[in-house]
Amino acid sequence: MASAAYTDAIMLFGDSLTQAWTDGSLSQRMAEYYSRRCDIVNRGFGGYNSDWAIPVFEQVFATREAREKGYAQNVKLITIWLGANDATIPGEPQCVPLDRYKSNLVKLIKLIKEPSSAYYSPDTKIVLINAPPIIENDWVKARVEKWESFGSTGPKPEQNRDKRVTKSYAEAAIEIAKEQQVPIVDIWTAIVDVAGGEGDDQLAPYFYDGLHLTSEGYAVLFKALSALIIDRYPELDPEQIPMRMPHWADVDLGNPREAFNKVKQGRLAGEL
Amino acid sequence: MASAAYTDAIMLFGDSLTQAWTDGSLSQRMAEYYSRRCDIVNRGFGGYNSDWAIPVFEQVFATREAREKGYAQNVKLITIWLGANDATIPGEPQCVPLDRYKSNLVKLIKLIKEPSSAYYSPDTKIVLINAPPIIENDWVKARVEKWESFGSTGPKPEQNRDKRVTKSYAEAAIEIAKEQQVPIVDIWTAIVDVAGGEGDDQLAPYFYDGLHLTSEGYAVLFKALSALIIDRYPELDPEQIPMRMPHWADVDLGNPREAFNKVKQGRLAGEL
Repeated sequence: MASAAYTDAIMLFGDSLTQAWTDGSLSQRMAEYYSRRCDIVNRGFGGYNSDWAIPVFEQVFATREAREKGYAQNVKLITIWLGANDATIPGEPQCVPLDRYKSNLVKLIKLIKEPSSAYYSPDTKIVLINAPPIIENDWVKARVEKWESFGSTGPKPEQNRDKRVTKSYAEAAIEIAKEQQVPIVDIWTAIVDVAGGEGDDQLAPYFYDGLHLTSEGYAVLFKALSALIIDRYPELDPEQIPMRMPHWADVDLGNPREAFNKVKQGRLAGEL
Repeated sequence: MASAAYTDAIMLFGDSLTQAWTDGSLSQRMAEYYSRRCDIVNRGFGGYNSDWAIPVFEQVFATREAREKGYAQNVKLITIWLGANDATIPGEPQCVPLDRYKSNLVKLIKLIKEPSSAYYSPDTKIVLINAPPIIENDWVKARVEKWESFGSTGPKPEQNRDKRVTKSYAEAAIEIAKEQQVPIVDIWTAIVDVAGGEGDDQLAPYFYDGLHLTSEGYAVLFKALSALIIDRYPELDPEQIPMRMPHWADVDLGNPREAFNKVKQGRLAGEL
């Protein structure tokens, strides 16, 4: 998009936890936080696991060639939030074995960080996010209610998740983050800490169906993510990013176009 | 962005009423409505009037050349929502006389619709939105409170808006929409209708400072805008737009990459 000003973007990449654009979702909170400073690009795909995320990434993330030619958004930061679906129990269609989940995360990181990758983007900062806890009873209840709302056709859904399994994926992501030297938001621990424990009643305010976050759950994530950004990538603190276009009160009323043209020349050197 | 899948976007263009990414704002509602179907690009600039909007538009909207070469987002729809600041009373820095406001709206429309324009984009559908009503007392109160919160330095703010003046701008936008055959969301009338009148108490739930909309105010706008889109541009009804990437349950587990590659080939003929 070198053809129009403002190509800087933050890409939120992942599954349904990322896909949400509801009130208080990660996307809404990030878009408000970066308002008039950076676009938020949501590339969340509900139900997807880390196996499927790789071919999807190769489509939604610009190649090095495209970016260097100025044909693509400039992704300053990407959040990679996968694991919740990988952690479905063996035999479930979304299940990805733990070792492959780990190697998939490494592949995704290397697609961005390895100079030999077609998607090499050294200026894209990476933040991993691990799987949050689940409330097993609420999740199976929500599945059955959905099945009933569609006329109870087909086999009645059974439990397809296990909190201990999910926890092992959450811990694996932390391991990979350390190994690959990529910062991670440990949302599993952040929610358990604020909830005061892993009990169903303790976790209840943070999940609306035992798996997906409420606004309160996303608030915990946003607090941790924004703190991590300011700590690890201070140049991406929104207060450090110039506001797009001057404040209206700074426009020279005698020659308003001047203010806007300066921005144009400053930011679009590679423009058509 | 021909370099990465999914370049279709809806651009929300205007002033602070557009800029908001808060819970329940126009942007949040549109992003949720078009989730996984079309990106919402917010190009709202608080305090801006229609004079300043023209040079800004020329930066944020891609040229025909860039778009045809595949270097730019494909803006399927643009909302142009200006007038609230133009309608500040004469002598105020944001004031744009009514006749120039009207000719500026025409200029913006022609920048998109005229084949001779560098920004010609025949596939970009346009929706105008007019200025909503204001609550004069609440607005001046909010200005004074803001001034006090910054230590009461400089001259105490006075009233800079007049509901009857704003109404004349709202009516002028309707006139221009008819003349230019562009659909308009008459948010002035929509809010007055749902409020049951133009009285301060009647309008109160829809404005948090007498000028800017609450979530309830944006709900009225979103209802009218989504109905207008379905009526006038049915191809932009989100239910008519294919979901990005297949539903996870439709992925062929034996050959998952196939599903994603099909999307790639289908959508990115002009890719690098």
